[in-house]
Parts: sequence; structure tokens; C-alpha cells
Amino acid sequence: MAPVYDRVALIGLGLIASSMFWAMKRGGLAGEVTGYARSSETRATAREIGLCDRVCDSAAEAVEGADLVVLCVPVGAMGAVAAEIAPALKPGATVSDVGSVKKAVIEAVAPHLPQGVHFVPAHPLAGTEHSGPRSGFAELFDNRWCLIVPDTGSDPDAVARVARLWQGMGAQTDEMDAEHHDLVLAVTSHAPHLIAYTMVGVADDLRRVTDSEVIKYSAAGFRDFTRIAASDPTMWRDVFLNNKEATLEILGRFTEELFALQRAIRTGDGDHLFAYFTRTRAIRRGIIEAGQDTDAPDFGRVKKG
Amino acid sequence: MAPVYDRVALIGLGLIASSMFWAMKRGGLAGEVTGYARSSETRATAREIGLCDRVCDSAAEAVEGADLVVLCVPVGAMGAVAAEIAPALKPGATVSDVGSVKKAVIEAVAPHLPQGVHFVPAHPLAGTEHSGPRSGFAELFDNRWCLIVPDTGSDPDAVARVARLWQGMGAQTDEMDAEHHDLVLAVTSHAPHLIAYTMVGVADDLRRVTDSEVIKYSAAGFRDFTRIAASDPTMWRDVFLNNKEATLEILGRFTEELFALQRAIRTGDGDHLFAYFTRTRAIRRGIIEAGQDTDAPDFGRVKKG
Repeated sequence: MAPVYDRVALIGLGLIASSMFWAMKRGGLAGEVTGYARSSETRATAREIGLCDRVCDSAAEAVEGADLVVLCVPVGAMGAVAAEIAPALKPGATVSDVGSVKKAVIEAVAPHLPQGVHFVPAHPLAGTEHSGPRSGFAELFDNRWCLIVPDTGSDPDAVARVARLWQGMGAQTDEMDAEHHDLVLAVTSHAPHLIAYTMVGVADDLRRVTDSEVIKYSAAGFRDFTRIAASDPTMWRDVFLNNKEATLEILGRFTEELFALQRAIRTGDGDHLFAYFTRTRAIRRGIIEAGQDTDAPDFGRVKKG
Repeated sequence: MAPVYDRVALIGLGLIASSMFWAMKRGGLAGEVTGYARSSETRATAREIGLCDRVCDSAAEAVEGADLVVLCVPVGAMGAVAAEIAPALKPGATVSDVGSVKKAVIEAVAPHLPQGVHFVPAHPLAGTEHSGPRSGFAELFDNRWCLIVPDTGSDPDAVARVARLWQGMGAQTDEMDAEHHDLVLAVTSHAPHLIAYTMVGVADDLRRVTDSEVIKYSAAGFRDFTRIAASDPTMWRDVFLNNKEATLEILGRFTEELFALQRAIRTGDGDHLFAYFTRTRAIRRGIIEAGQDTDAPDFGRVKKG
């Protein structure tokens, strides 16, 4: 495959950026990839493991001459990073990001970008509970979705090229407007994460059920919650603070439903519970048919390459 | 390994019973295994796939002459099944079960059992979202816990033998009293399941977020919930109706915590969120160290044998 970009700069070198690097290398999608992370420790690790062709000591140096700059920092840091790199951006360059929230990121980043620079926000729906420069792997985006959320007036060619890059990294792409993106993600990701964090916190608080018991006997249900609740705290703090409205709306609906099910338990209404549980089972089938998971039992996970 | 029992009868032929059969065969743990399921379709399937050495057309026939009878039916059906088999039980036989709730099962089953029959309740902490006679596999219990919950006055030899059977099927065993079992499971399994069911139901209800979008973009977080929420509806209805008190108590604590986190989001209290999320991450590490899950990313699940 011919490179999609001659020069790509990754700002922030965590799970997503490091996976992008390995996926771009695998696909031969970029001529040179530069990288920058705020922490000198992260930069040292990146140099040690060969993450990025060139690791730079400032964001401005990393973006100099880049055709594509991808902001891979927590959502709350996007605005400051955009301000920092703006003067060093090459005219005609494209700036993209991988934030889990899009409306707030567009509001924070767009005002800083000089005229003649294209802004193409994106959000790959992929991740693990691991973080940091060592956590990435080339297959992370394979068969996952990447949502492209063009700003009003985004250049169609720039948008198509970002989509091509993601497709080259193994993802399927789709376009969506920012507000709708944030609502869909509140349902499929943000609210579930907050709920998982909450349940794990509750278990931790209970003194009658000792920690070791909760951990020892975690096989059913709770284990899946702990995996979700082990995700990067900084990233998720920023997600909730920046997708406040949609997340709170979904959580409101969630609480309402939970109260109805609690009442059914209290009053012994087995028919209500059975009907509800039967309905939710069908959604799972839909997900398997949509190819976003396998039908295999929840064990025997294998470590990737 | 020498057989632990000459004759074992499995009443109910779903995920757990079918996995027990294959695990007992793998380990050479039982001379003959008989099986019974209420549905004639299930019995036909069992005969077709060779599940059980002999599939019987009544529960009484299946338990006749059995040294161990394991009740593998939903918690709400345990009492009726115990009443049905009681007259056919061999003197000195052991009756066990695999129900997810222990106090209610003991109350429902114990009164029916004749003198001279040992009752050794048990609960293997293992499962998948699949159900039915075709869903079982020999490895289901490998490296999982099976909690033995002896009734007051259970014969120590009978208890030790049930434990030996579970160890032979790959599980680690532990003993616990019924009330404590039900509280621990409310935290690690029952409340998480109800929460997952609720969230999947909310997603299904939302009309602005179309079904196909929720399914398509489910990779992050929501997918794990759908797996949990795809579990057998009858089994889970019975769990909640029979572990009402502990489940409602944990859900009360959960709601309280969730409200505190929602308030932190609403007021923009990032420090509170960050501290909470950091704390929950540590629990996950504990689970990995306890050997109840792997550290591998949440993909690449492989289908077992």
C-alpha cells in the first residue's frame, strides 16, 4: 500500500497513539512518524521500544512539516495542546484527534487552528484497560469502527484521507455529527463505564465482604466490571466532565429503569423480570451478528502477538 | 484417577450439568452418569450428542441407585424437584445442587430429603452467557471456584467427597455458610447482573439512538454488559427472587454511590472522579494477581475445543 501521508505526528503516546504507530507501520501508511509526550519518562520509553521513527522533545518540533497531526491526549488537554502546536503547523496540514468526546473537543481545538489547516476530528471505538506507551499493538483497530466527525466546513478531501488512514489501520469508518456522536457514546460507552466504576467502588467499600473474597470469587459478572473500571482514570475523568449533559441524561434513564427492576424484585414480580431479561438477550445476538464480538465463552482470552 | 462416585445423576441438563458431565468424563470421576431434563426436546438433544451415559424419562428413574444426585435446575424449581425425587433416593446417597443462591435453596430442598440422605449444597462460580444442553464443555470449571455450603449437620465425609469431585473437575473448593455466600454473591454477581440488564434495557429503549447504532458501536464498555445481560432469563429471575434481601441491599449502596458520582460530574468535580477511578483500578490488579482473569486485552477470545 502506498503511504497515505508522508509525515504523521502523534501528540501523546498512550494506548491509542502507540497502537496507531504499529498499525501504520504494519500497513506502510506513513513515510515518517514523529511522536511527542509531555512526560520525559514516556518519551524515554518510546525511544527504548522504537515507538515512532523520531521522538521529539517538544510538540512544536514533532508537528513541524507534518501532513497529519493526531492529538492523542486526554480530552481535557486537547485545547492547550492545540494552542501550543498551532504556530508550528504546516499550511495545508490536517489536524485530527482520537478523543472519546467530540463536541467539547471541537470547541476547544478549532479556535486555535490557523486558516488553511484542516480539522478532521475522529474517534476510534477501540481500547483495552491498559494505558501507556507499552500498551499498544498493531491489531487494536482491526474490524473496529472509527467514527469521523467532520467539523462544519471540513475539506472533503482531507476527511476522505483521514478515513483512508483508519481503513488502512484495519478499521471501518463512518461519519456522524458531533452532538449525535456524544449521545451514542454516552449510551454505548460513557454510562457503562461510570456504572462499572460505581459497582467496583461499592464492592471495595463493603467491610463485611472482605476484599479478598470479592477478588477471589469474582468470576461471574463482577470481573467484567473490573476490567472496564480499570481504564485510564485521567482519560475517563475528562470524558465525563466533557460529555456531561448526555451522560447525565442516560444515567437518569438508567436509574429510573433500575428502580423499576428493584421494585419488581421487592414485590416478587417474576414475570416482569423474565420479560425484561428476555428482551436484553436479543440485543446480544444483534451484536454478535454485527461482528463486534465473538460467540465464544468468556474465557481463554489469548494474549496478542 | 479412581471414580469419586459409582453412579451420578444430573437433574436438569443445561450449561452447568452438561459441563459437569464432560468434566467428569475427562477426569474419569464417575462410573455411570444418568441425566434427566423436564423438556423432552432437551432429553432428545442429550441423547443425540451423547450427553450422559443414560438419559432417563423421569427424575425418579435417573436418581434410582445414584450415589450422588446433583440438582442443576433454576433455583425456583429446586424444591419441587427435591419433592419429586425424594422417594426414589438410595439410602446413604448424597444430594447436591449448583444453585447461585444458597439460603433459599436449602430452605426449599432440605425438608423433602429423607433421613440417611446427605445434603451438600454447592455453587460453582463459572458460567457463560450460553445455556442449554449443547452449551457445556469440560473446561468450564478449570481454575474456577466452587463454594461448598454445608447445611448444619452435613456429614463431613459426604462434604469432602463432593469437594473431591469438584476438584477433579478442575475447580478449587472453599466452604462458606449460606448467609455469607448469598451476600458475597450479591456483590460479585447478582447486583452486577441486574445492573447490566438495566443498562442494556435502557439502550434498547432509546429511540433517538437507533438499535443498529447501539449494536454497531458497542465495542467499548457496552459490549461487556450485553454479554452479562444475555444470561439465561429463568435462572436470573429465580436468583433475584431468591436472594432478594442481599441484592436489594447492595443495589441501595450502588445507587447511593452512583448519585455521588453523578453529582461530581454535574458540579465538575474532577478530583473526586479521578480519585474514585484510581481506587477501582487497584481492584482489577488484585483480580489478575488472584488468577481469576488474565491480563490480556479484551479481544481475541478463542472458541474452546
